[in-house]
Amino acid sequence: MKIWQKNIDVDAFVESFTVGNDREMDLKLAEADVLGSLAHTRMLNHIGLLTNEDLMAVQAELKTIYAEIQGGMFQIEDSVEDVHSQVEMMLTQRIGEAGKKIHSGRSRNDQVLVDLKLYFRAEIQRLFASTENLFNRLLSLSKEHQHVLMPGYTHLQIAMPSSFGLWFGAYAESLVDDLHLLKAAWTVSNKNPLGSAAGYGSSFPLNRTMTTELLGFEDLNYNVVYAQMGRGKTERIVAQAMSSVAATLAKFAMDITLYINQNFGFISFPAHLTTGSSIMPHKKNPDVFELIRSRCNKIQALPNEIAMMTTNLPMGYHRDLQLLKENLFPAFDSLNDCLEIAAFMLEHISIKDNILADPKYDYLFSVEVVNNEVLKGIPFREAYKNIGLAIEEGTFKPAKEVQHTHEGSIGNLCNDHIERMFEEVKAQFGFEKVERALDALLS
Amino acid sequence: MKIWQKNIDVDAFVESFTVGNDREMDLKLAEADVLGSLAHTRMLNHIGLLTNEDLMAVQAELKTIYAEIQGGMFQIEDSVEDVHSQVEMMLTQRIGEAGKKIHSGRSRNDQVLVDLKLYFRAEIQRLFASTENLFNRLLSLSKEHQHVLMPGYTHLQIAMPSSFGLWFGAYAESLVDDLHLLKAAWTVSNKNPLGSAAGYGSSFPLNRTMTTELLGFEDLNYNVVYAQMGRGKTERIVAQAMSSVAATLAKFAMDITLYINQNFGFISFPAHLTTGSSIMPHKKNPDVFELIRSRCNKIQALPNEIAMMTTNLPMGYHRDLQLLKENLFPAFDSLNDCLEIAAFMLEHISIKDNILADPKYDYLFSVEVVNNEVLKGIPFREAYKNIGLAIEEGTFKPAKEVQHTHEGSIGNLCNDHIERMFEEVKAQFGFEKVERALDALLS
Amino acid sequence: MKIWQKNIDVDAFVESFTVGNDREMDLKLAEADVLGSLAHTRMLNHIGLLTNEDLMAVQAELKTIYAEIQGGMFQIEDSVEDVHSQVEMMLTQRIGEAGKKIHSGRSRNDQVLVDLKLYFRAEIQRLFASTENLFNRLLSLSKEHQHVLMPGYTHLQIAMPSSFGLWFGAYAESLVDDLHLLKAAWTVSNKNPLGSAAGYGSSFPLNRTMTTELLGFEDLNYNVVYAQMGRGKTERIVAQAMSSVAATLAKFAMDITLYINQNFGFISFPAHLTTGSSIMPHKKNPDVFELIRSRCNKIQALPNEIAMMTTNLPMGYHRDLQLLKENLFPAFDSLNDCLEIAAFMLEHISIKDNILADPKYDYLFSVEVVNNEVLKGIPFREAYKNIGLAIEEGTFKPAKEVQHTHEGSIGNLCNDHIERMFEEVKAQFGFEKVERALDALLS
Amino acid sequence: MKIWQKNIDVDAFVESFTVGNDREMDLKLAEADVLGSLAHTRMLNHIGLLTNEDLMAVQAELKTIYAEIQGGMFQIEDSVEDVHSQVEMMLTQRIGEAGKKIHSGRSRNDQVLVDLKLYFRAEIQRLFASTENLFNRLLSLSKEHQHVLMPGYTHLQIAMPSSFGLWFGAYAESLVDDLHLLKAAWTVSNKNPLGSAAGYGSSFPLNRTMTTELLGFEDLNYNVVYAQMGRGKTERIVAQAMSSVAATLAKFAMDITLYINQNFGFISFPAHLTTGSSIMPHKKNPDVFELIRSRCNKIQALPNEIAMMTTNLPMGYHRDLQLLKENLFPAFDSLNDCLEIAAFMLEHISIKDNILADPKYDYLFSVEVVNNEVLKGIPFREAYKNIGLAIEEGTFKPAKEVQHTHEGSIGNLCNDHIERMFEEVKAQFGFEKVERALDALLS
Repeated sequence: MKIWQKNIDVDAFVESFTVGNDREMDLKLAEADVLGSLAHTRMLNHIGLLTNEDLMAVQAELKTIYAEIQGGMFQIEDSVEDVHSQVEMMLTQRIGEAGKKIHSGRSRNDQVLVDLKLYFRAEIQRLFASTENLFNRLLSLSKEHQHVLMPGYTHLQIAMPSSFGLWFGAYAESLVDDLHLLKAAWTVSNKNPLGSAAGYGSSFPLNRTMTTELLGFEDLNYNVVYAQMGRGKTERIVAQAMSSVAATLAKFAMDITLYINQNFGFISFPAHLTTGSSIMPHKKNPDVFELIRSRCNKIQALPNEIAMMTTNLPMGYHRDLQLLKENLFPAFDSLNDCLEIAAFMLEHISIKDNILADPKYDYLFSVEVVNNEVLKGIPFREAYKNIGLAIEEGTFKPAKEVQHTHEGSIGNLCNDHIERMFEEVKAQFGFEKVERALDALLS
Repeated sequence: MKIWQKNIDVDAFVESFTVGNDREMDLKLAEADVLGSLAHTRMLNHIGLLTNEDLMAVQAELKTIYAEIQGGMFQIEDSVEDVHSQVEMMLTQRIGEAGKKIHSGRSRNDQVLVDLKLYFRAEIQRLFASTENLFNRLLSLSKEHQHVLMPGYTHLQIAMPSSFGLWFGAYAESLVDDLHLLKAAWTVSNKNPLGSAAGYGSSFPLNRTMTTELLGFEDLNYNVVYAQMGRGKTERIVAQAMSSVAATLAKFAMDITLYINQNFGFISFPAHLTTGSSIMPHKKNPDVFELIRSRCNKIQALPNEIAMMTTNLPMGYHRDLQLLKENLFPAFDSLNDCLEIAAFMLEHISIKDNILADPKYDYLFSVEVVNNEVLKGIPFREAYKNIGLAIEEGTFKPAKEVQHTHEGSIGNLCNDHIERMFEEVKAQFGFEKVERALDALLS
Repeated sequence: MKIWQKNIDVDAFVESFTVGNDREMDLKLAEADVLGSLAHTRMLNHIGLLTNEDLMAVQAELKTIYAEIQGGMFQIEDSVEDVHSQVEMMLTQRIGEAGKKIHSGRSRNDQVLVDLKLYFRAEIQRLFASTENLFNRLLSLSKEHQHVLMPGYTHLQIAMPSSFGLWFGAYAESLVDDLHLLKAAWTVSNKNPLGSAAGYGSSFPLNRTMTTELLGFEDLNYNVVYAQMGRGKTERIVAQAMSSVAATLAKFAMDITLYINQNFGFISFPAHLTTGSSIMPHKKNPDVFELIRSRCNKIQALPNEIAMMTTNLPMGYHRDLQLLKENLFPAFDSLNDCLEIAAFMLEHISIKDNILADPKYDYLFSVEVVNNEVLKGIPFREAYKNIGLAIEEGTFKPAKEVQHTHEGSIGNLCNDHIERMFEEVKAQFGFEKVERALDALLS
Repeated sequence: MKIWQKNIDVDAFVESFTVGNDREMDLKLAEADVLGSLAHTRMLNHIGLLTNEDLMAVQAELKTIYAEIQGGMFQIEDSVEDVHSQVEMMLTQRIGEAGKKIHSGRSRNDQVLVDLKLYFRAEIQRLFASTENLFNRLLSLSKEHQHVLMPGYTHLQIAMPSSFGLWFGAYAESLVDDLHLLKAAWTVSNKNPLGSAAGYGSSFPLNRTMTTELLGFEDLNYNVVYAQMGRGKTERIVAQAMSSVAATLAKFAMDITLYINQNFGFISFPAHLTTGSSIMPHKKNPDVFELIRSRCNKIQALPNEIAMMTTNLPMGYHRDLQLLKENLFPAFDSLNDCLEIAAFMLEHISIKDNILADPKYDYLFSVEVVNNEVLKGIPFREAYKNIGLAIEEGTFKPAKEVQHTHEGSIGNLCNDHIERMFEEVKAQFGFEKVERALDALLS
């Protein structure tokens, strides 16, 4: 039972317990780590703590390592604790003593902090791009099918006429609102914690404004205690933004599984994108959308997990924070995959025409008919009574045409406004400024 | 056991089950409901669905009711289901038939939607003001105590010198980042859903742009299906923003309970603001901060509750959404109280001077001393070795002075920059525009 | 902005902040509080800390107060902080000095602890009874409709034949498993914390075994530090058990809203138990089940809230714990209402006959037909190929009869076994022992 | 942007999206999968669907594969979707046609269900053993240090005398209560779902009672629809039980990080089990306990994640359920590691003697002194006043001895009762019955 009775090396057990799967997670921070060091060393040189010669050697080799990472040739060795040590070790092996000097004026704490911020920034930008792609697909389907009617439900009861134009467009607009949270996460991530050292600053005359500019950050995490406090908090805010996109996707996936169900039968996908059975030819299991829903619900639970792991921890670094990587880092890929595969599936969706011809949808139009009478001048109560009687007597025959003209209705989707709102929030991110800074840093 | 065996009126049981405590919650929507009707009726008149005469009567009486609500004289009667019915009933009792006409071109669904948006907007503005008040208090304490040193902890182990200037300032800066989420919640709340009817629009030629302007909304929820989908989603985003402020407050409260503990003993409050015991004169229970922590942790759990209640619901209204009010509405008051009472308590905080004179804090300065040697030109490894030896031999005598000069460090708090960032995010809300619109609507 | 500028009495603000809505919650603890005092005072007398005379006066008056509580005549006055003070004050007003003596050897902390345990025990028993009632209703519907077939879905796709017997029975069996969690919550609640004082015991020679027996507890929370640690933990475990019952109910409510939807149309309820519209006669909004779903999902979020409010609090009492009452106490009523109203609604459910006659369900039987061929001796691959061909050629005509005979299948529901399992878990609670003890205490 | 523009094979993308990291997770189900097949095939033979000859071949080879799994030689090939396919493929490769016959009367759905139940049972037993080990360690420390006093805190304020005997014993007793939830999870897991096929049963004359006995299950999931409904529900209940153990551990870890902090300084660990710094010799970072806390708080969030991923899914299998493995399966190892390493660390804990000699703890004893006066016959109010005066005048000199004798107090820990309760809950599991059944199945 006891570990030392199991011939397990105690130190190895303690080490494996404390390292966990940190190496695997840290691989994702490799690019960010090199970027941080490129900026930090230029600053060290600027304040006289690194010679020009050392700087040149370090910069050249860091750029080589950056290229290796991008080329997929970077590994964290089993004997090395984390990505930061790996980069430093490679540097020292290749250029000697100069490699050891890059850690001056920096603590492991603020090094991780800046890596995380740079990594989150890159991942937010990637999520933005995938969201934009899906947004465009949804809007384009909304335009394509704007005249195809479908039933609208309230309480999951057949209620009012709706359209595929409305349905697709609704999810496009939902993504626009999600992006406001993503923008907040971007803003919080786009501030520079480098120079906060172990959370209490340093007696070196660091120039934090300089690293801020070099790394393309919008601003600083000024207060060094707050810079450290950002750990866990930034993760939670990023996860909250992701959960908002995920909630939109999960709801859309729920609709899809319902509408592809044979009792609804509004939509379908080609056989090779669903799973079925040769003796149950009707069966088209929407596995992709079930998994989108499940992955996205998992992401919806993520902010709560982060809060649970960080709440009631007093100020200052705690080792607890290391574990926040474990579910958050893979969630970026997972959400990105969901956005990509949803857009892909929608390339292949088929819409059933003429759904409302089925008499079970006749009553959808009763409110329409009453309103139309009112617009012709008949008092509401009279119109309402007439239609009620017609329904009772079985003589109600709706025209099954919809004349909605106001903003955002079936006949006036306002997709151009939705696009305008998308462009407005996009412009707030300022991705180009970041890209320019990083290009300059790497050139 | 069974309810019909308990001589309970079945219909009453069903009604009480479905109404729940909705009436109590709805009271908070009363002002918003009247504002919505003021705008809606002006639009109805504009498109020819309400005569000038009716409009004048309705507007006058709605403004009277608004004044009654503000005066605390408004009640939802037991026989009335909700706030919307109550307002309509009062209107009809007082001005007759015209009162019944205000519901044309509107459904209960979009009426609730617009009420919620207006209510959230007002609550966000109130939270902003309380946050600003606490922010100012924290920054002012940071300035006042900027030279008072305290130990800084990592792993809850004594680590590096810190200061009260840093500690107070850190929480001020934390609030600035929280406000970016609050701004996202504001943006999502500040769009007009009115005119979406039951979630599928209307055959009346509504002018939604007009009500948007009258109510001071920044934009529309264009797509009517999305407007309805915003229910639950808006609540979750608002709660996420609140949870961020709450997390900052809860962490601060945790610090307070630790620092007021006698083993730390860094701070104290006057006896009448803590609870104690005459035979345990040392005991100063920080009940207020324990309750701030607890309330704020409860608020941290709120976004998850909302997600749990809304996830996997397909598109369209569901009665489930009614219950989202129950924990969210009181949370506004609760968070506001926490912000106010925290600021109040901080008016009375006492800071212990000369904490670091205690020899147990001597080693705090070892890193300082090494760095200072390095800055004098001694190689790092040599300096490190020298200090290590001095500590081992018991000859280490730190100066207990800190010379930190970089941005955000003990000697250079950059509180002016933190204030600048606060003003920047404040400017993004645009509270004045909303106030101007509502003043015009009510005048 | 600041509270003291608002002419608010500061002490009143602090008091109202710290008391919160504790008085309202505490009312629910009144009976438990009296029971605890009845036992505590008999023990005090037994160990010589209360005279026989005082004991008689106290016991008589406590029983009077108990009767007043049961009669709905008990109130916590505005000037009184909590239920414990209210009971003591009433006692002292009525019988003089003896009333003040009942607090010897007891702290407010263990008084609350024992009140909570007694209250949870009573609420668990009430939930059990409501669960049993619903369980019986479900099983009786399962028997009544055991031969009525319905489609079974996987991936929400039409898959295999099922039956109403299976559907109702499944939820009955689900409740049995939920009761194992409720039993765990009962066991944890059914241990006596009285005598732990402020969490560190007492120098009085208390007889905790005696109060354990008087209050009908199964065992003691022996370790006094653990007894205090049970606060928050017991709440979480009780909420976890409730969440399990709630999850079953929420899932059932989801099925109901789906099956009452017109695209499914498997079930219906009388008009007066749904909400509809005279011009949309098809519409039968299942508000009751939507609210069951929503309430139960809210309860599913409750354990997480409690964990968030208690995690990372070090050992010993914290004022944070007071707030755990706020959402937990009302949840008992809420879940109970859900169980009762679900059972009531099911008294009135109508089941559609002959659902599978619709040709869209033909393929449901393809697996059946293949299996039947196999049982007749035809190799599986051959049978499969034959049926596949018949389907392709449109000659597949299923018998639409199901011959399932194994345990738990359509033709052999094993409801008697499900009842047996229910009785087995019921027997483990031992409600009678508790009832006998409390009867003795009150007699 | 779009995946088909990235030269990614679409089918490969869809496949990789749907498979996810299922193969990695499935490896943990390999033993359970073989056990299930051993029982299923014996039953098939019993009802005449598998010849004696085929049975012998299948049983022999399955046992070989079981040994290979235990020997670490089992892999799921990249071309194979899951563990079930891998086992079947190996079987067919090795013994030919007979290998294909084992799937008769079974669906992938109930095969996964029974694998999960068997796997959970094994993991619960493993967690029990690790919990027992830690329980024993805590109780033994409680006995060893029963006379060493320490301060007891309420509101994190110094309050009353406590002891290390109480502190260690409290966490031991906490584990006992946690085991009641684990027992509930065991009971729910220890029921046989095999034979439920795709959730609607089978037309084959399966003998589910026989497989129940062969696999050592206590009972059946009778209703086949409920058997399927157990997916997700069982996971949640198992996670809830784990979260309870985790909450105890996390709280203990919080205490440890506080008591090892230099302001408290109650305990310490050898240098090689903490991390430190040569120039900060006071620093002993309790990384192991910080990571225990973090891992356990993560596990505390797990039940909520499962609820979020399963709530509002209507009856029947959904692909969503596949993803529940991802965080639950690794959590078993994680919690087990925490229990093991906590027990290991406690082998090396050092307790500071004579903590209460420090005058700052004098007032701890004021309540003691008052109570002692009362026991000598002095009225409470008089005693209280006397001590209060002595404290005020600075003449209060407590004896710093504690005479607590009642059950569970410093002088009477009742650890034997805590052990008795542990044995009682242990006996309820019935691990031996399961072990006997599996031994018989494999022999």
